[in-house]
Amino acid sequence: MTDEWETKITKVTPNELLIRGYPLDDLIGSITFASGIFLIIRGELPSLAEEKVINAILVSSIDHGVTAPSAVAARTVASCGVPITTAIGAGILAIGDYHGGAGERCFKFLKECLQNRKNGQSLQELAAITVQTVREQKIRIPGFGHRYHSQDPRTIKLLKIADQEKISGVYVNFAQILAKELSDQSQKPLPLNVDGTIGAILADMGFEASTAKAFFAISRIAGLTAHILEEYTQRPVRTIIPSEAKYTGNTKRRLP
Amino acid sequence: MTDEWETKITKVTPNELLIRGYPLDDLIGSITFASGIFLIIRGELPSLAEEKVINAILVSSIDHGVTAPSAVAARTVASCGVPITTAIGAGILAIGDYHGGAGERCFKFLKECLQNRKNGQSLQELAAITVQTVREQKIRIPGFGHRYHSQDPRTIKLLKIADQEKISGVYVNFAQILAKELSDQSQKPLPLNVDGTIGAILADMGFEASTAKAFFAISRIAGLTAHILEEYTQRPVRTIIPSEAKYTGNTKRRLP
Amino acid sequence: MTDEWETKITKVTPNELLIRGYPLDDLIGSITFASGIFLIIRGELPSLAEEKVINAILVSSIDHGVTAPSAVAARTVASCGVPITTAIGAGILAIGDYHGGAGERCFKFLKECLQNRKNGQSLQELAAITVQTVREQKIRIPGFGHRYHSQDPRTIKLLKIADQEKISGVYVNFAQILAKELSDQSQKPLPLNVDGTIGAILADMGFEASTAKAFFAISRIAGLTAHILEEYTQRPVRTIIPSEAKYTGNTKRRLP
Amino acid sequence: MTDEWETKITKVTPNELLIRGYPLDDLIGSITFASGIFLIIRGELPSLAEEKVINAILVSSIDHGVTAPSAVAARTVASCGVPITTAIGAGILAIGDYHGGAGERCFKFLKECLQNRKNGQSLQELAAITVQTVREQKIRIPGFGHRYHSQDPRTIKLLKIADQEKISGVYVNFAQILAKELSDQSQKPLPLNVDGTIGAILADMGFEASTAKAFFAISRIAGLTAHILEEYTQRPVRTIIPSEAKYTGNTKRRLP
Repeated sequence: MTDEWETKITKVTPNELLIRGYPLDDLIGSITFASGIFLIIRGELPSLAEEKVINAILVSSIDHGVTAPSAVAARTVASCGVPITTAIGAGILAIGDYHGGAGERCFKFLKECLQNRKNGQSLQELAAITVQTVREQKIRIPGFGHRYHSQDPRTIKLLKIADQEKISGVYVNFAQILAKELSDQSQKPLPLNVDGTIGAILADMGFEASTAKAFFAISRIAGLTAHILEEYTQRPVRTIIPSEAKYTGNTKRRLP
Repeated sequence: MTDEWETKITKVTPNELLIRGYPLDDLIGSITFASGIFLIIRGELPSLAEEKVINAILVSSIDHGVTAPSAVAARTVASCGVPITTAIGAGILAIGDYHGGAGERCFKFLKECLQNRKNGQSLQELAAITVQTVREQKIRIPGFGHRYHSQDPRTIKLLKIADQEKISGVYVNFAQILAKELSDQSQKPLPLNVDGTIGAILADMGFEASTAKAFFAISRIAGLTAHILEEYTQRPVRTIIPSEAKYTGNTKRRLP
Repeated sequence: MTDEWETKITKVTPNELLIRGYPLDDLIGSITFASGIFLIIRGELPSLAEEKVINAILVSSIDHGVTAPSAVAARTVASCGVPITTAIGAGILAIGDYHGGAGERCFKFLKECLQNRKNGQSLQELAAITVQTVREQKIRIPGFGHRYHSQDPRTIKLLKIADQEKISGVYVNFAQILAKELSDQSQKPLPLNVDGTIGAILADMGFEASTAKAFFAISRIAGLTAHILEEYTQRPVRTIIPSEAKYTGNTKRRLP
Repeated sequence: MTDEWETKITKVTPNELLIRGYPLDDLIGSITFASGIFLIIRGELPSLAEEKVINAILVSSIDHGVTAPSAVAARTVASCGVPITTAIGAGILAIGDYHGGAGERCFKFLKECLQNRKNGQSLQELAAITVQTVREQKIRIPGFGHRYHSQDPRTIKLLKIADQEKISGVYVNFAQILAKELSDQSQKPLPLNVDGTIGAILADMGFEASTAKAFFAISRIAGLTAHILEEYTQRPVRTIIPSEAKYTGNTKRRLP
């Protein structure tokens, strides 16, 4: 009835833990958490360029304020008198196809386009025919356009770093050509958004599509923790109305 | 019926996101994810020493193999045909008082001891009377002893880094004296374990007790992601028997 | 390392399932779902009186509109593009000490009072001294008073049925005396609320305290399902503002 | 930014709750929980036949022993020291496409077949061509065959009740013809299983496909509660090996 079960992740013996082969106590103090995340998912330590890009991706999704559905779910549940991990879990469950999920869907869309690319077809030609098709079929390409930000500052910075670190490849390249073509044909700005950008970069780094949602979760759990701790200071079971929260934190400041 | 609602974490306006006052696009590429986690929870960027210790803590809890209950829960749920974030959520729910929770309970125990410390009482005297009391009441102090590791390599390394970075204070100090006293009076080794160590370090860094469980969750979500991706390559709804998994990963290797 | 593991709930062999000893195919069509719930939790089938009271309890908590935190969490998560069980799970996580949890806390409070009852002390005397103590210590007894309903119609009906069916015992009795004493000494109405009522009835039926939260979850999952299905008909990731929802359902009607 | 929000489920005003128009205190004591579930999901009270069938469905999925992934997840999480609703939530998350999900997938498969039925085509002809197609495409039809039970006693009883109560319609009819055709062409028994049966019955009752998973969750939460309460009596964080649990409950017995 049971399968032979194998695992390649972690070996635990008394007084020794090997993470993908490396003694955990060697890793502690030697690598950053971002490198550890890369190592445990991919099996190998990142290059310096990969580490820099992973840090950038993880910082970029850390929070999006009280109106994000994952923050609403986490705070609502925290308000009911449960342990912090139960509230974090509720926030993670809100990460779905329509919240933090566009990266995975964009990744898959780009992959399918590139797999169907004809011999000798330029990325520009592929983009033109793709946009024409989706417009005819009235399909919305995931990862393009944002209901709130017309020029998302996160996207611009992430693309700059991925280019500088020479991580950008055919996915990032094609995604940007697609964004331009999409905006041109639609005659309205439909730029690559932060989710689409992360999906394209992860594709160029050789990750699987489903990791896009996982990286969003790994990153956002930090913001959720902050929201839950803030909620714990409030009256239990209060009515949470995200759109009416007043920001009373630090005013804008520059990095030291 | 509704409360005035304030938030100090993130300010979102069109084309600008402020995280604790800093423009998110300034943070992307400039700080590590560990610094971002510290910033969003505490409200200020960490010092270099704090950043180093936070990285060490987050790397130390990244995974503990297939037998950890959070890995069992996450893999079991992943095996049933659900999105990756649903499986991650299930793994996070397993983090409770008895799994990843000893840090919080140890933090609170140490805090109560230190709050009841008498004027002029040395930490050694406080430890002696504390151990005597818990032994009489047959209470087990959380964060001491490990059912599997007698000399946990993670603990040794974490304490070394916390000392080097001058983060260790009265909590870490007292926890170590307590461990020695506990082992002496019990006449068996009951060293500070990894959860207790993290609880004491977070206390010395000025975090709240409940963040111990949150840091465990933030760290472990990386390992859970690796487990879920590995499980997705297997037959759905297979019987998961953690104790029988065979490690087929990398053999022991040294950092480059 | 592993424990001998025993279970008394269900025996599964090829082509036969025994639920607490009864063939499941004998139960299907012969008993109500409420009886099945009682059977699997308690190990024996309910009497007719017990079945009637369990049905009443389960019907009473089935929903409390869009403002209940579990409904907010479930709808928020459903809105993000996840499977129905992920959204149900998020709603269940919101059931905590302050939402659906007063029954368990009331149960435990009453139990402690009754355990400390002195020889020959009447329930009235016990109630008087209890109220005096909690008022001095400024403690709020869980399960009394409601932030929204001053005369909760569910409470009145549940108590009537528990009395009629001769299920009410010392817990229900004491809870009602306590409510009167509490209102008298406080000089404002602090009636037994629906959660407190259910906690007291479950105590008189011989259930464990933690089942109060479980019965709330079993009941409310029906309402959550209705909310999630309704949410699925709406635009994804919309802003959910519970206090502003407009009721457009059936007007008040009488049972046929 | 926000949508007009409407709800048709429950109206809450001080001292009055209307569930689909009916005062909740009228429902308490008058209807069974199964009727309440039907009412809140569908908007109308069930007929006696519908109530009987819903009770049968809900009893049939109440538990499947310790090896079911939802039970493994719930017990594993319960073992970690969390509130009962957190453990229930973890169990619910395990209900996915491959556990408790075949009902929904079977429902959708049957629906698609019936929608593509040609004018004048008999169900037998439709079944023959369907089985031929899936066999050529090496597709497994969800809801047929069981890895453990060759003659599932739950299926036989459910179909009998659905027929007796005149609930069975074109879906149940077609599903049974399909099962016979499938077994004939495959030359091995591939009977309609319990999930497929429930999917077909719910389709004939006019429910939406996604309610199949919801009914499974509503039913199974009872079994999960029993498993969690049993687990709470054990040592925390023990290794859970579902296949080795020993049944020590009641021996087989008949209904009184």
